[in-house]
Amino acid sequence: MRSRFHQGLDELRNRLLRMGGLAEQAVDRACQAYKDRDLARCHQVLEGETQINIAEREIDEFAFDLLAMQQPMAVDLRFILAVTKINSDLERVGDQAVNIAERVMDMVDLPAVDLPVDIPRMAAAAAAMVRRALESFIEGKAELAHAVLEMDNVVDRMRDEAFIALVKAMNQNPSSTRQALDVLLVARNLERVADHATNIAEDVIFWVRGADVRHNAEPEAATQQPSVPQPTTETH
Amino acid sequence: MRSRFHQGLDELRNRLLRMGGLAEQAVDRACQAYKDRDLARCHQVLEGETQINIAEREIDEFAFDLLAMQQPMAVDLRFILAVTKINSDLERVGDQAVNIAERVMDMVDLPAVDLPVDIPRMAAAAAAMVRRALESFIEGKAELAHAVLEMDNVVDRMRDEAFIALVKAMNQNPSSTRQALDVLLVARNLERVADHATNIAEDVIFWVRGADVRHNAEPEAATQQPSVPQPTTETH
Repeated sequence: MRSRFHQGLDELRNRLLRMGGLAEQAVDRACQAYKDRDLARCHQVLEGETQINIAEREIDEFAFDLLAMQQPMAVDLRFILAVTKINSDLERVGDQAVNIAERVMDMVDLPAVDLPVDIPRMAAAAAAMVRRALESFIEGKAELAHAVLEMDNVVDRMRDEAFIALVKAMNQNPSSTRQALDVLLVARNLERVADHATNIAEDVIFWVRGADVRHNAEPEAATQQPSVPQPTTETH
Repeated sequence: MRSRFHQGLDELRNRLLRMGGLAEQAVDRACQAYKDRDLARCHQVLEGETQINIAEREIDEFAFDLLAMQQPMAVDLRFILAVTKINSDLERVGDQAVNIAERVMDMVDLPAVDLPVDIPRMAAAAAAMVRRALESFIEGKAELAHAVLEMDNVVDRMRDEAFIALVKAMNQNPSSTRQALDVLLVARNLERVADHATNIAEDVIFWVRGADVRHNAEPEAATQQPSVPQPTTETH
């Protein structure tokens, strides 16, 4: 029989996973809108933002109530703090999806041009990072979180390649400058989604290891296990 | 005589203000580097990042220790949570300064071109937002924080104007495309600095009002005052 406090931790965790599902969905929809030049889907992303914002606020308040309820053990305290930080990052992933949708809305009004940047591939990489960062959180595994940190370099490189390719395209075909800029900014937004996934992975490591490994600090040798139980169901 | 816990809250607050000073300095230096095409100053910004990252980690650990030390009152709990969130945003302000410095390093290698975007003005607006957000935190005044939220629209508009002006400049003079792109990305980075200031202002309101006003939720009528004492010295 789990205590009310531990039931609260389970509930907090589940709410955060639902929030993660909303953020991932927003990115998927924005990229689908990009591929299909689909205005209706852009509007879906814009409308979904409200839901994500409400979810963020509710999670923060829930975390606050848990902290206020009783004196949490150190590991639970770290878990709750990690949740509030992951929560902010997920909300900002949603913001990036909105930014992408807004760029797509700009592009739809312009003639379609073929540009040498594979946005869907970059989107898939960024979305995979968010998904794996959340998996590392669900499973409480720092190794998975470390793998996410390594993936960030790949997305950064894609963004740099996009930058170079788009400058070249603009020079060769100035009439497509605005479209190229839109694509460049979409690439930037995806890079930021990847950055948020990186932040989430760092917060997972902070929680699991009980040491803050952000910014390449040496993790502690201790491998304290999280007290939140492992789930049997997937949420995304 | 203040308790050890309240002395800890004072110390946490002072550390966050020092962190804010570092973040502001990074943005100032990056913009000075932009104005003067000054590589040495770019390197200063890059080196300063390490210091900011260490400060962020230390503040998070300090906040964690305070939470673990005793059962904080609700208002102190909100204060500590606000600090950890503001801390993340200040670190990311530092990241934006690094991004700007990297863009300047790219520009210095290219011929100087005159572009119709007033980056220093935009930088001043974004830096003012960060400063006022921290002032609202020092003084515990939600009104000041609300003023920061309103300033965000101004910076967003500057970014939109920059976007339009730079697309036009690229079309008229394709040989300066790369420089124009660099300037566009600097404008984006400054917009993100302003976004972080907005996040900080929201966290201050969360702390002061005891209600989360993020995402346009209605603040509670209660005007609970923060328990952290008002300082007599300015830190920036």
